[in-house]
Amino acid sequence: MKKNIFYAALAAMFVTSGILHYSHASATTQIIVCSIAIVLAAAFLGKATESVAHYAGQRMGGFLNATFGNAAELIIAIFLVKEGLFEMVKASITGSIIGNMLLVLGLSLLLGGLKFKVQRFNVMLAGHNASLMLLAVIVLFIPAVFAREFTVEKTETFSLAVAGFLILAYLLWLLFSMVTHKNELADVIEAGNGQPSAHAHEEPAWSKRVSILFLFLATAMVAFVSEWLVGNLEDFSTRFGLSELFVGAFLIAIIGNAAEHSAAIFLAMKNKIGAAVEIAIGSSLQIALFVAPVLIFVSYFMGNTMDIVFTTYELVAIGVAAFITKSISRDGTTNWYEGVLLLLVYIILGIAFFMV
Amino acid sequence: MKKNIFYAALAAMFVTSGILHYSHASATTQIIVCSIAIVLAAAFLGKATESVAHYAGQRMGGFLNATFGNAAELIIAIFLVKEGLFEMVKASITGSIIGNMLLVLGLSLLLGGLKFKVQRFNVMLAGHNASLMLLAVIVLFIPAVFAREFTVEKTETFSLAVAGFLILAYLLWLLFSMVTHKNELADVIEAGNGQPSAHAHEEPAWSKRVSILFLFLATAMVAFVSEWLVGNLEDFSTRFGLSELFVGAFLIAIIGNAAEHSAAIFLAMKNKIGAAVEIAIGSSLQIALFVAPVLIFVSYFMGNTMDIVFTTYELVAIGVAAFITKSISRDGTTNWYEGVLLLLVYIILGIAFFMV
Amino acid sequence: MKKNIFYAALAAMFVTSGILHYSHASATTQIIVCSIAIVLAAAFLGKATESVAHYAGQRMGGFLNATFGNAAELIIAIFLVKEGLFEMVKASITGSIIGNMLLVLGLSLLLGGLKFKVQRFNVMLAGHNASLMLLAVIVLFIPAVFAREFTVEKTETFSLAVAGFLILAYLLWLLFSMVTHKNELADVIEAGNGQPSAHAHEEPAWSKRVSILFLFLATAMVAFVSEWLVGNLEDFSTRFGLSELFVGAFLIAIIGNAAEHSAAIFLAMKNKIGAAVEIAIGSSLQIALFVAPVLIFVSYFMGNTMDIVFTTYELVAIGVAAFITKSISRDGTTNWYEGVLLLLVYIILGIAFFMV
Repeated sequence: MKKNIFYAALAAMFVTSGILHYSHASATTQIIVCSIAIVLAAAFLGKATESVAHYAGQRMGGFLNATFGNAAELIIAIFLVKEGLFEMVKASITGSIIGNMLLVLGLSLLLGGLKFKVQRFNVMLAGHNASLMLLAVIVLFIPAVFAREFTVEKTETFSLAVAGFLILAYLLWLLFSMVTHKNELADVIEAGNGQPSAHAHEEPAWSKRVSILFLFLATAMVAFVSEWLVGNLEDFSTRFGLSELFVGAFLIAIIGNAAEHSAAIFLAMKNKIGAAVEIAIGSSLQIALFVAPVLIFVSYFMGNTMDIVFTTYELVAIGVAAFITKSISRDGTTNWYEGVLLLLVYIILGIAFFMV
Repeated sequence: MKKNIFYAALAAMFVTSGILHYSHASATTQIIVCSIAIVLAAAFLGKATESVAHYAGQRMGGFLNATFGNAAELIIAIFLVKEGLFEMVKASITGSIIGNMLLVLGLSLLLGGLKFKVQRFNVMLAGHNASLMLLAVIVLFIPAVFAREFTVEKTETFSLAVAGFLILAYLLWLLFSMVTHKNELADVIEAGNGQPSAHAHEEPAWSKRVSILFLFLATAMVAFVSEWLVGNLEDFSTRFGLSELFVGAFLIAIIGNAAEHSAAIFLAMKNKIGAAVEIAIGSSLQIALFVAPVLIFVSYFMGNTMDIVFTTYELVAIGVAAFITKSISRDGTTNWYEGVLLLLVYIILGIAFFMV
Repeated sequence: MKKNIFYAALAAMFVTSGILHYSHASATTQIIVCSIAIVLAAAFLGKATESVAHYAGQRMGGFLNATFGNAAELIIAIFLVKEGLFEMVKASITGSIIGNMLLVLGLSLLLGGLKFKVQRFNVMLAGHNASLMLLAVIVLFIPAVFAREFTVEKTETFSLAVAGFLILAYLLWLLFSMVTHKNELADVIEAGNGQPSAHAHEEPAWSKRVSILFLFLATAMVAFVSEWLVGNLEDFSTRFGLSELFVGAFLIAIIGNAAEHSAAIFLAMKNKIGAAVEIAIGSSLQIALFVAPVLIFVSYFMGNTMDIVFTTYELVAIGVAAFITKSISRDGTTNWYEGVLLLLVYIILGIAFFMV
């Protein structure tokens, strides 16, 4: 019943988006409708990925889940790259990372903390990924420092090299977590609070073929609506006097990650704060190690290489977010006040990005 | 007996300060005498606050203790704001934070460590506030990064917004620690080393009415002497070629916090290093979350809004101090060498601020 | 047998270096041969130091081991100072620190991790020095921030002051670890994984007199070859278009530390990861607290004071390395993937330094 409403809403928003696009509706209207459509389509895509992953066997399934986790965001960003809106792409990468670490984690801790006085999670589990994430974030800082005095050509070469190493790190991470140290990580999870993993999924409702078909369908829907959305962003920004930085870091990032974000928050409200922390950190890790470098290569193959040089504003935002998350993930207990602090930092960054 | 000497000294220094002020004595003389008078009056104010807090009941008392903790410093800073010495105000905020974290903690660890080979404290207790403090410090970094390219007007608006959020965070922190999670924090304290809390106070010597009277009297004394002190700072700085930065960060900060500082050091020498750490961190937290934003609003209501944009020098000093304190508070044991390192960093920063 | 081959190789490379030097061979040839000779001579120097330390008694021996640990690097740097190649000196200090923390630790974790699935070490042991190292690194940041607006004279004064405080910190550290808290640290080591200390040495093969003679001989050899090496660096750099920054941070740093580095890696491959971590961190600590400030004073006595102001590139590299090491040394277990990440960061920094 609930499912049917979801599919009906998705179909309705998708069709409306298309109609508005081809009837050249105002940018604002299109952006509002497309945003809702993307959020729904991304949720559908997440469901389809899990289902295909189920049939694909454990190893391949893990790989699919890991790689399609930020698919919606990646697709939107690819269309931004196509339009040459590089500043917005990098802002959206920034926004996804701070969105995961400040907004999602903040809401999870706050809403979870209002229901449960103190929530606990396994520190080993969270600390493991938090360290990797910190490393990934650090790598993003290096080009910004060094490339400032590079020529455009040098910056391009360096960006491609850094992107290559980041993808290498990502592939080795998959090798590590799914092949060589699979059991060790599973042990850590079992030794945890008995919380089911964030990615544990129930018996899927669809057959194998339907799952694969739905995966394609969902990807296509996200892709179409993303293109329609991106086409209106410049008009929209100009009309409301918004900078590429703000639109990328807050609007795009929130739309692209909303489905994933709400999942984390619901888990926190069921006292599964460990799973919520895992999603927030894992997703940030994937953006830094996979989404960001893939976009560099995508831009390269499209003939206009985007550099991997983030602005000081973006780096400060990312650094602040990574640092706070690491700090909070250290003691293994959370409460509503920690959530409030994360949200306050997010709001202050939002105001700052808006005013710049 | 000892008390009588204290009151006699306080009265004498207060009267002398007044005489020097109205007889237009040299700036240097006035500053020396006023400084001693402020240190004594601040100690008196601390005592009066504790006594009133005792009669006010646990909750209101906790609030009073927390909010009047840095009253002397706040009063001096308000007179600096009135004189428009904004650079000195921000330098004194910086100086209070690094003074707490490097000078006080350094002296506590060194002097405590010379008496006791290894001193231990409850990591949970210290880590709890250290995380909050780090967050608060991070918030102070954001305006500095973003406001550099703002217009004056925008900087004002943004400073007021940030100040508002900081005070909100402070009020919610009081709500958290005194209402919703009061018992949890008390449990942590009890589970500690059996150390009495820094704020535990014995049966007060004064009646309720006398306490309230003394609180007013002490506040008035601090206020008068602060005004006399501040009036001479510019002459004094010019005469000795000192920058606003140095005077604010070292002279003002040390005078305003001396009473509190000596309390922490005496506790460390009684092997109550946990209480000393708690005071140093708690006081820094209060300066960042309460004193700093209140001063922004005070300047706003005086008609000339001070911004919350710290200089790179100040931010580096604060960042270094916060980072080191967090690092040292992590393992729960301290020794004289850690104290030496904190003091060396304080001295090097002092030389740097002096030379800039 | 194996020893004889080592001595024969050392003698051969030393003599060849000398012949090439006096026959004015090409810079490239000289640099390659001298580099190999220095690596061998540094290994010889390390062996001789340990042997003399054995005879000198525990306390004096500990002091010798600690102070001669980076002797080869110090000697090369002194010749660089003599040539006025200050940028290269500071780059080599940077390179030694990041070499220890990223290259050596990275290779240790990777190669050790390929043989042993999970390697464990005592967190207390490593965390102890890691905190000190972080403090030392922080001190190196302060001059860079403040000295930017200083006059040349002020920068000189400030550099000497900072250097003086660093050496004071080093001497007090020796006092702390070898006198006042010797037993406490020994207890920590014993409470560890039962791993023999990195500096534990077997019965020496040489008599006391021979040891002292060998110490002088080894020092002399390192000194001679260092001078020959340094004399060719400018030609070599020009020929291959390498910056002082790259040559100092990568070539010089690797040559000067190779002997020590290989020791750490061999320990990791014998599952003594704790000892490897200890060497990497301890050596970095010594460079920041002892080698760097000694070089400032050496330059001062040579009549042309080198400042202690590192470039942003260098500080970022050092900061990144210190941060990552601290992060990894926190949980007490290591695996091959952590090694990969450290090496990737090292490679990316290498490319960045090369391209700048």
